[in-house]
Amino acid sequence: MNNPQNILIIGAGLCGSLLALRLGQRGYRVTVMEKRPDLRKVEISAGRSINLAFSNRGNKAMKLVGMEDKVKKLCIPMNGRMIHDTQGNTFLSNYSGREHEYINSISRGDLNALLLDEAEKHENVNIYFNRKCQSVDFENTTAKFYDYESKTDFVEDADVIFATDGAGSILRKSYFLGKKFLFSFSQDYLSHGYKELSILPTETGEYKTYKNALHIWPRGSFMMIALPNLDGSFTVTLFLSYDEGDYNFNNLTSPETVTEFFEKEFPDALKLMPNLVDDFFKNPTSPLGTVKCSPWHFKGNTLLMGDAAHAIVPFYGQGMNASFEDVVEFDAVLNEYKNPKSKHDWETIFKAYEQNRKKDTDAIADLAIDNFHEMKEHVNHDLFKEKRHLEMALEKHFPKEYASKYSLVTFNEHMGYKDAMLKGRAQDKAILNMLADGDISTALDMTKMELKTILDRINSETQKILDEDNLAGLNK
Amino acid sequence: MNNPQNILIIGAGLCGSLLALRLGQRGYRVTVMEKRPDLRKVEISAGRSINLAFSNRGNKAMKLVGMEDKVKKLCIPMNGRMIHDTQGNTFLSNYSGREHEYINSISRGDLNALLLDEAEKHENVNIYFNRKCQSVDFENTTAKFYDYESKTDFVEDADVIFATDGAGSILRKSYFLGKKFLFSFSQDYLSHGYKELSILPTETGEYKTYKNALHIWPRGSFMMIALPNLDGSFTVTLFLSYDEGDYNFNNLTSPETVTEFFEKEFPDALKLMPNLVDDFFKNPTSPLGTVKCSPWHFKGNTLLMGDAAHAIVPFYGQGMNASFEDVVEFDAVLNEYKNPKSKHDWETIFKAYEQNRKKDTDAIADLAIDNFHEMKEHVNHDLFKEKRHLEMALEKHFPKEYASKYSLVTFNEHMGYKDAMLKGRAQDKAILNMLADGDISTALDMTKMELKTILDRINSETQKILDEDNLAGLNK
Repeated sequence: MNNPQNILIIGAGLCGSLLALRLGQRGYRVTVMEKRPDLRKVEISAGRSINLAFSNRGNKAMKLVGMEDKVKKLCIPMNGRMIHDTQGNTFLSNYSGREHEYINSISRGDLNALLLDEAEKHENVNIYFNRKCQSVDFENTTAKFYDYESKTDFVEDADVIFATDGAGSILRKSYFLGKKFLFSFSQDYLSHGYKELSILPTETGEYKTYKNALHIWPRGSFMMIALPNLDGSFTVTLFLSYDEGDYNFNNLTSPETVTEFFEKEFPDALKLMPNLVDDFFKNPTSPLGTVKCSPWHFKGNTLLMGDAAHAIVPFYGQGMNASFEDVVEFDAVLNEYKNPKSKHDWETIFKAYEQNRKKDTDAIADLAIDNFHEMKEHVNHDLFKEKRHLEMALEKHFPKEYASKYSLVTFNEHMGYKDAMLKGRAQDKAILNMLADGDISTALDMTKMELKTILDRINSETQKILDEDNLAGLNK
Repeated sequence: MNNPQNILIIGAGLCGSLLALRLGQRGYRVTVMEKRPDLRKVEISAGRSINLAFSNRGNKAMKLVGMEDKVKKLCIPMNGRMIHDTQGNTFLSNYSGREHEYINSISRGDLNALLLDEAEKHENVNIYFNRKCQSVDFENTTAKFYDYESKTDFVEDADVIFATDGAGSILRKSYFLGKKFLFSFSQDYLSHGYKELSILPTETGEYKTYKNALHIWPRGSFMMIALPNLDGSFTVTLFLSYDEGDYNFNNLTSPETVTEFFEKEFPDALKLMPNLVDDFFKNPTSPLGTVKCSPWHFKGNTLLMGDAAHAIVPFYGQGMNASFEDVVEFDAVLNEYKNPKSKHDWETIFKAYEQNRKKDTDAIADLAIDNFHEMKEHVNHDLFKEKRHLEMALEKHFPKEYASKYSLVTFNEHMGYKDAMLKGRAQDKAILNMLADGDISTALDMTKMELKTILDRINSETQKILDEDNLAGLNK
């Protein structure tokens, strides 16, 4: 398949390199400009998370481009959350009652390199590094770059420009500052920031704590998590308020207070982190923000995708998965229409894509905020624990009939995020209220028939909640 | 009372002039800079709505500054919505079942002039016009202005700066572009714009249609409204999509199509508007947007108030009322603390003010969007009409026990917008679902006792909805 349209992609991160690969496979002439050096050649400390959660929606995209097997080799399965209390006691809370449903820890760099390699196998795909986009003239479909190597500016012209340049997107900035059309935009910061730390491997290269889980130290108003890496280490992330509480990023300014804080709140982790103080003062503290905007496209000229269109907080482990799903959804829209030959065709395609997709990326943004509260607080609450326990039993005994909100979002890749959110929230509300009212039991020794009765009640309550909200116009 | 703190207010619109008056009354040295000419001396076509809805929350502020009686003289009571169908049939839907509860149409210019006059009576208040703010250096508490008269720039220094410079606030822009702190910000445009038109008085200066109502021509995906002026005219506003539907702002480009559109959709209004085509092509089409942001203040140096902090769409008639209530709420915080003597004191006050107030301005922003849909569509639906009919009966027979969402928001000025929203939405949901299920009757001849039974059921269903949402964490 050959397609004469010239496509410029700004940004060769995870979304950009996948998009380049897919559009290359479809026969477009693709040029990619990336501001960073080639991460396959240079060690990059990009200030971004080292590892990420990879799950079904991301894998759907890997299937689309024929990369599923190669990516699998990079994955470390995490079957559940390993919760750590302040005494160092732990318990494992599975993500699903179905054994084949788990999430994976994966290295951002390794995955990105794999996608770049695969994209470059197509001779119609050309990727350039060290080219920083400065602005996009979306009316004329050109972009201005600075070349760090030759130290010169240049302008790149294309039939269509895709911006996959992340949360700080230059195209999005050009939309905002250009004031050429009504551009709805939001940036919302949490009161908390994050800092990456590490648990290094043992001297013999072994994992110092349980490998196949996402570790959480929930402390109510703050928390710490850890994800495993292939080299035996864990990347640890502390989520903490900038200025509230006894300990916060603004007052943790000396080795003594940092150590005191960890001794009090994370004593078991501290034992595994002799490098804590070094990490703490070497690594930056970064903000946590959500970005939404609309429209994503300007006519048939330019389109935002991935974090550039919808940056989300990391608490559902869906950032990369949502960006990968963007490419799957965009590909489906391309299949629906004839191969675009003009700006007018691209405009139709961009409109249809945003129409299909935006409701879902808005939903995962909101779900990710919900999960911040769930992870730092709720996982420790009795009512929440009872709910999770019941849901695990339902998923185990009725694997085809029941899926929790977490499962709907993470493992049901054929349901959009919006529907998953509405159904999942209604289900949570039904269960929490029935539990609070003592309407349903969570005895350990329930028979399958007793469980089935509970399942039927949950389903009918959930449907009632959805119907009542619909009638009152609350599910828009 | 004398207070040595020097206060600079940017913007002498409704919020700025009220704030200047109140801070003047409290003894501060107040300087106000306004970019427009003095509206008491020059006819201004500012492109903003000519008349506004004034109700209890706004009046609370007028009481605070002792202006209630003077403002009352500018008010035209509107007791309800006068709904016009495409055949020109009308029916009046009261805003409340309590006779003393109504909203008022008031001239923006007259009210602003009154507040400016009153503020200038204080010798510690100085107001300058034709001074356009260009940027605010919030770290140094200075602002740069351009003087249209002398055609020169100047810098104004103050102990503290209040920006009441509206939806396009320069201080807010300085926060956003300055990137000195994490600034959450959103601008959200509706797909609809608006255009102001007019129904002029008869030759003898009489009103051409019923004076004491807010007229609505609801048409599902668009609508038109009209509010009376003291001179016998009505200011008419058409709310219409820019690019969707058979007729929209982008395709209404000739006198013929405009007339055709009005003949089809608003024939009764067209008869009263011989000046339609002139108005239509003379007046601008303006966008409808919501702005939210946080924090409103930078340390103890600067604070956003009114539309500068929270611009909302006009559909609840609460824009001015919310801005006036800002001043009441700010005044209450000033009462709580000692007179501020330092940046540190101001910071404490600004924090407390935003903590109290932001939840409520967020709520009225969302309520105003809800009401767009209610006004253009729901007012014509049978289920909605049944609900309104029942609520009127409840408010009439149980004036102290029942208040609709509209009444809670508009007439219950001692309940914050957030609580009014949560209670009002739960109540609406309870009633709509009971009506849809045939659980409650709306017979015209119900006895008071039958109504009381219904009221009790509504109250208990409403409480149940609130409790269930609370438990599920949905009312945050």
